[in-house]
Amino acid sequence: MSDEREESTVPDAAREEVVQSVMRALAAHGYAGLTTKRVAAESEKSEAFFFYHYDTKEDLIVAFLEWAVDRLSNQVAGAEDADPVTRLYEACDVLLGDSSDDVDRGINVAMMELLSHAPHNERFHERLTAYERRVVDDLAAIIEDGIDAGVFRDVDPESTAAYLLMTADGTAGAVMALGMADVEVMVRDRLFDYVGTTVLAEGVEAPPEWTL
Amino acid sequence: MSDEREESTVPDAAREEVVQSVMRALAAHGYAGLTTKRVAAESEKSEAFFFYHYDTKEDLIVAFLEWAVDRLSNQVAGAEDADPVTRLYEACDVLLGDSSDDVDRGINVAMMELLSHAPHNERFHERLTAYERRVVDDLAAIIEDGIDAGVFRDVDPESTAAYLLMTADGTAGAVMALGMADVEVMVRDRLFDYVGTTVLAEGVEAPPEWTL
Repeated sequence: MSDEREESTVPDAAREEVVQSVMRALAAHGYAGLTTKRVAAESEKSEAFFFYHYDTKEDLIVAFLEWAVDRLSNQVAGAEDADPVTRLYEACDVLLGDSSDDVDRGINVAMMELLSHAPHNERFHERLTAYERRVVDDLAAIIEDGIDAGVFRDVDPESTAAYLLMTADGTAGAVMALGMADVEVMVRDRLFDYVGTTVLAEGVEAPPEWTL
Repeated sequence: MSDEREESTVPDAAREEVVQSVMRALAAHGYAGLTTKRVAAESEKSEAFFFYHYDTKEDLIVAFLEWAVDRLSNQVAGAEDADPVTRLYEACDVLLGDSSDDVDRGINVAMMELLSHAPHNERFHERLTAYERRVVDDLAAIIEDGIDAGVFRDVDPESTAAYLLMTADGTAGAVMALGMADVEVMVRDRLFDYVGTTVLAEGVEAPPEWTL
């Protein structure tokens, strides 16, 4: 019900500003600390605007999640004309996130908080499942392209995608929420080593910017 | 301050019952839904007992986390006289958790929720960091034992441990909170394949119960 109202009455440009404000407020305060006042503080719009268009903070989160899935999917899929090797390394880099970026770190932590509410919240459950599914599909499509192009081994695209995603998702805790910097370095190293030794075909090298 | 009070006045047997009640209540309701009433409902003790010994629900969580780190560490470390191959497979199995067990699933989801509060809660931050660190150390110790015994390759114990742990931690979202059963199957399959091909030495086989 609320979903329909958002769709029908918030113009696209305003919607974009809304979700960006939700993202920044969520990154800074988490879901438990999110209030309409704090979202409005990140926006050019008034608190009244938010109260008029969104009944609850849950509605704001749903609008954010619907936008976030497309945003992440675009980032993960990468430039379709780039080679699959570069696309896979860049996708893994996007999924691991940048712990030195406050918004990126905060959003990774907030997504974990929203996931923890999913068993009790059908709307979050639905959007977050779509989110995880889409990323698995995007990664699997890159892996399939690489197999077809002969630059990847004949791995199972979907299970390899799910495995890479779970490792990246796991860093939201120890790395992003707890700031365990050595874990971040070690996991990036092992994950890219996995891609290099298990996914890349014999004789195929990692892109130059990924070899050090 | 509250920590000291718990330490000094709750007898060991009562403490064990308290943390088990917190665990069950946390698994069922999450941290946001946790109340002293709900913890008491999982216990033989009265609500008054909980109010007397624990000022806040945060105190209950801290008591739970201090107990949980030892419990998980014992489960992960396994029987010290068992061979490192069996210990590593069993440790990974423990860390992946059992999605068909309501308490195990609920606690995995709740740990994710507590991690998401760590940036705003120094006491959770400290206990959860100790928790992740201990598991990395326990896994790394098993890997070192296996290298010394000649049954594992000469991998880096700590980074391999951190990598395995992050993958297991990641399943708390898609598998435990969202119930994506296919992701669970795929990730278990890839993680045990990783152990088999990257950690086990040439010619060493997975324990019979892990080969199908």
